[in-house]
Amino acid sequence: MLARSGIRRTSSEWVRSITIPSACKSRSQSGSRIAPLSSSNRRAAYSSLASGSSPVEIAKRLSLLRHIAQQKLPSEGQTPSHRIACFVRSVRKHRNVTFLAISDGSLLSGEQQTLQAVLRGSLKEQYDNHLASGIALELVVEAAKSKGQGQDVELLVKEMQVTGETDAATYPIRLEPVSKGNSKSQEQQNINEAHTIERLRRNAHLRSRDLRHSAILRTRDVMEGGVTDYFRSQDFVRVVTPVLTASDCEGGGEVFRVEAATNWPSKVQPKDGKQHSFWSDSQAYLTVSAQLHLEAITMGLGRAYTLSPAFRAEGSATNRHLAEFWMLEGEQITSQDASVAMGEVTDVVEGVVRNAILAVIERKELLHQLSSDKQAFEEIAQYATGKRWQRITYTDAIEQLSWQESPSHNSPPKWGDSLSSEQERWLARNGPIFVTNYPSADKPFYMLVNDDQKTVACFDLLVPRMGELVGGSLRETRLNTIQERIKTISQQDQEGISDKLAWYTDDLRKYGCNPHGGFGLGVERLLAWITDTDSVRDVITFPRVKGPLHF
Amino acid sequence: MLARSGIRRTSSEWVRSITIPSACKSRSQSGSRIAPLSSSNRRAAYSSLASGSSPVEIAKRLSLLRHIAQQKLPSEGQTPSHRIACFVRSVRKHRNVTFLAISDGSLLSGEQQTLQAVLRGSLKEQYDNHLASGIALELVVEAAKSKGQGQDVELLVKEMQVTGETDAATYPIRLEPVSKGNSKSQEQQNINEAHTIERLRRNAHLRSRDLRHSAILRTRDVMEGGVTDYFRSQDFVRVVTPVLTASDCEGGGEVFRVEAATNWPSKVQPKDGKQHSFWSDSQAYLTVSAQLHLEAITMGLGRAYTLSPAFRAEGSATNRHLAEFWMLEGEQITSQDASVAMGEVTDVVEGVVRNAILAVIERKELLHQLSSDKQAFEEIAQYATGKRWQRITYTDAIEQLSWQESPSHNSPPKWGDSLSSEQERWLARNGPIFVTNYPSADKPFYMLVNDDQKTVACFDLLVPRMGELVGGSLRETRLNTIQERIKTISQQDQEGISDKLAWYTDDLRKYGCNPHGGFGLGVERLLAWITDTDSVRDVITFPRVKGPLHF
Repeated sequence: MLARSGIRRTSSEWVRSITIPSACKSRSQSGSRIAPLSSSNRRAAYSSLASGSSPVEIAKRLSLLRHIAQQKLPSEGQTPSHRIACFVRSVRKHRNVTFLAISDGSLLSGEQQTLQAVLRGSLKEQYDNHLASGIALELVVEAAKSKGQGQDVELLVKEMQVTGETDAATYPIRLEPVSKGNSKSQEQQNINEAHTIERLRRNAHLRSRDLRHSAILRTRDVMEGGVTDYFRSQDFVRVVTPVLTASDCEGGGEVFRVEAATNWPSKVQPKDGKQHSFWSDSQAYLTVSAQLHLEAITMGLGRAYTLSPAFRAEGSATNRHLAEFWMLEGEQITSQDASVAMGEVTDVVEGVVRNAILAVIERKELLHQLSSDKQAFEEIAQYATGKRWQRITYTDAIEQLSWQESPSHNSPPKWGDSLSSEQERWLARNGPIFVTNYPSADKPFYMLVNDDQKTVACFDLLVPRMGELVGGSLRETRLNTIQERIKTISQQDQEGISDKLAWYTDDLRKYGCNPHGGFGLGVERLLAWITDTDSVRDVITFPRVKGPLHF
Repeated sequence: MLARSGIRRTSSEWVRSITIPSACKSRSQSGSRIAPLSSSNRRAAYSSLASGSSPVEIAKRLSLLRHIAQQKLPSEGQTPSHRIACFVRSVRKHRNVTFLAISDGSLLSGEQQTLQAVLRGSLKEQYDNHLASGIALELVVEAAKSKGQGQDVELLVKEMQVTGETDAATYPIRLEPVSKGNSKSQEQQNINEAHTIERLRRNAHLRSRDLRHSAILRTRDVMEGGVTDYFRSQDFVRVVTPVLTASDCEGGGEVFRVEAATNWPSKVQPKDGKQHSFWSDSQAYLTVSAQLHLEAITMGLGRAYTLSPAFRAEGSATNRHLAEFWMLEGEQITSQDASVAMGEVTDVVEGVVRNAILAVIERKELLHQLSSDKQAFEEIAQYATGKRWQRITYTDAIEQLSWQESPSHNSPPKWGDSLSSEQERWLARNGPIFVTNYPSADKPFYMLVNDDQKTVACFDLLVPRMGELVGGSLRETRLNTIQERIKTISQQDQEGISDKLAWYTDDLRKYGCNPHGGFGLGVERLLAWITDTDSVRDVITFPRVKGPLHF
């Protein structure tokens, strides 16, 4: 075995001399799933995948419907044959032929939500009584030009095996694609929708089979891809920060605490009279924000971000809150001048949100399956491509709100009041807007105190219809100032927050603290906003809220 | 306000008619950080970033050292001027000139770890006594051809501002790049290394400033990028699964339990005699694996993966275990034939690991900063680019081990024994190897029972030097079989695991369960293996293990 160790001397020559064998440079095993790809060839190979040039090769053993649907059929001669694994969304039996609308989870193009498999002759006879919506099948099929409308390809079934039975009578959710041009009344539709949403929530474990929910899941992947690409282009490094933390970052108190199940506090005293903790009597909480740890990491990397779960033990069951949610948090070294630095940080936030939207609206086949309102999407597309978003101070926002005669504002707001959700949405009525420099009184200790001593250098990004989407600030880098600010927390603090946070307040400031700032964005909120979904509980498959925990 | 709802009818026309304004198609605001980019232009723009064509434009206000170092200097005329924020790694004062080795967290190319800033005249006079390693500065500099060795560019300081003081006397970690050609004895080096590692762990909040640790953090980002690209090329969708779960997936018992801090069990009874839980008296645990939830989601999406934190309340303080770690878990619908399906799943695992390695070895400037052993990297590069990895059954592995005369195997292993770490490393002595079809006795209930009734269709990926890196299996899809298997757990189970998991064991199997399989990979282990780092505690900035929780 090699003697290995954490630190080594630089040996400059050998790095240059590492040669990457040619297998890596050309995609020699182009058919195999394990083919190693160099970055340039990775890119080339992916675009060839995207254009569907060789679907059978990609997944040698099982073909995906997406690739079959995209494949050009030969004008004559042998049609290609494929082995597929799928499930049936609906069955239509006729005298001589049975049509199965099938899915395999791969995303079809355009409006198409299923492919049609055609069953005739002895296979039809053998299986007809057995077939039902939801059943899982392995099929060998030939792709053929379809005579039906709205599809180019249909699949002629040559071999068939039932791989997973179904109980169609009790199947809890609807599998059929929603038929178009349905002329039910708006009221009836609303009732149906509410019913569907409720049923999907109760059956979270089956929810990914719903076409709209699966489109939301794909949207999240695409959206996060847009965010990742943007951060990479701006030299941000993606890092991980701990979920288990020693202190409650904001002092808000709505935290979860964690103990090993075998060390769980019980009324029965252990023999030695002392209850031992996995954490040796320190306390462990679930993180409410990665910020403090991320700031520490950013001092070394310059620009860093995390995408991690965060937790709030909040009781309120609103459309915008989850006990477990994902936060995108970015942090960067900034200019010393606070107004310049605010521009640097808010520009990154704007870039993140714009690129998240753009990544999604480029995928028109996704938009079809989200099947949402045209108007909502067009609005959001405009925000992503239109002019730079507005920035106003809290003080100006209060002034604007106080002239504004709106029946919804019962009394004009005063400087120092916090903004209501309604007021936030009013400020963002024409597009996303940053509101900056809020009064310091209610704000956390780590925010940079402005020269006026009354406000802190923070911002919220407010967006139409939703309100607050992102919050962020410059960070206080002056040791004396931050120590004074944390006292206000420590006074109510019996657990010695200020001691626990000395690594953050003292050490980071003692050892060359570059000016810096950052933000946090609730991923589920962004996803709900982009997909035009009312509740964050419906953009995540297994949402966690106060109350009995299922699944 | 728009009336919005979760489900909508498809309106096919409008999606096609969404037009993306031209601002999106060309990078019209090419200088701005918020410039929206379409996917093709995103790619073009990134490659122009990578080649460093317009570093000043990318970050208008603050330039990154990485871009300055890559910029071509004009052969005559005005040299470009930059504003930068940085910290000082070392100071060399001479009579007429002071040299500062500076970093800003951006990764320099090749071997270069710092840029040299040159201070003369009145600025030198004013600041010389003040400058120390660790101090944070904002500078205005001009880039000039360097006269020094090993660098093309140096920075002439024109303006200077101290933005963060430092206490050089107590600075807890070493900031200077390790000098080359250091001729200390091997023994002395080992002592220094151990000392450095220990100091970095104690000062986790400062650790990202260490050059090797920051290179590990970057490697993780790059490695995860390779994994993400590979999964995307294979039609896997990245999804999220819950961290908070209602049951302990594997029945192993080493779980953490979670309660809201305000509902924490105390010896003082509340007035109504009952202690209320945030979870309404259900129990919440931290996930040990996303697998069960991921399987549910995969039934709808066909192929899905997660990259999420997972938790084990393990007491063992080894180099390979953390209480909090990140797991990469993939799941896919497979062929019905188990031997074909095993090939499908292990091929994906092999593709993931190969592409993770390839993404890293393409970044030679990273390898320089990791400054590890040439031999270890070359070995790993060979695994990524060489021939398909071997697959053998557990039964064959036992046979091979029993012929093998090795002093380390005290007694020949018998069929049914589990493999020791030493035996695993011996099996993987020539390269990564999959060992498949282990005896069913000790394996979890969800693994597919093979036709021999003695083994299950599972696999471990063993890699040289480390041993087990990935574990996976096909999943049992037969309702009766899985119910019998879970009984063996339920017998010792007082909490009704089988009831809590009915959604998984019964529902998923009742409603069209496609054959499927998947795997889990410990991200920190992979990172430690690729970066040739002894302990997983040193590849993550804030590691969590049993004992007092700091930070």
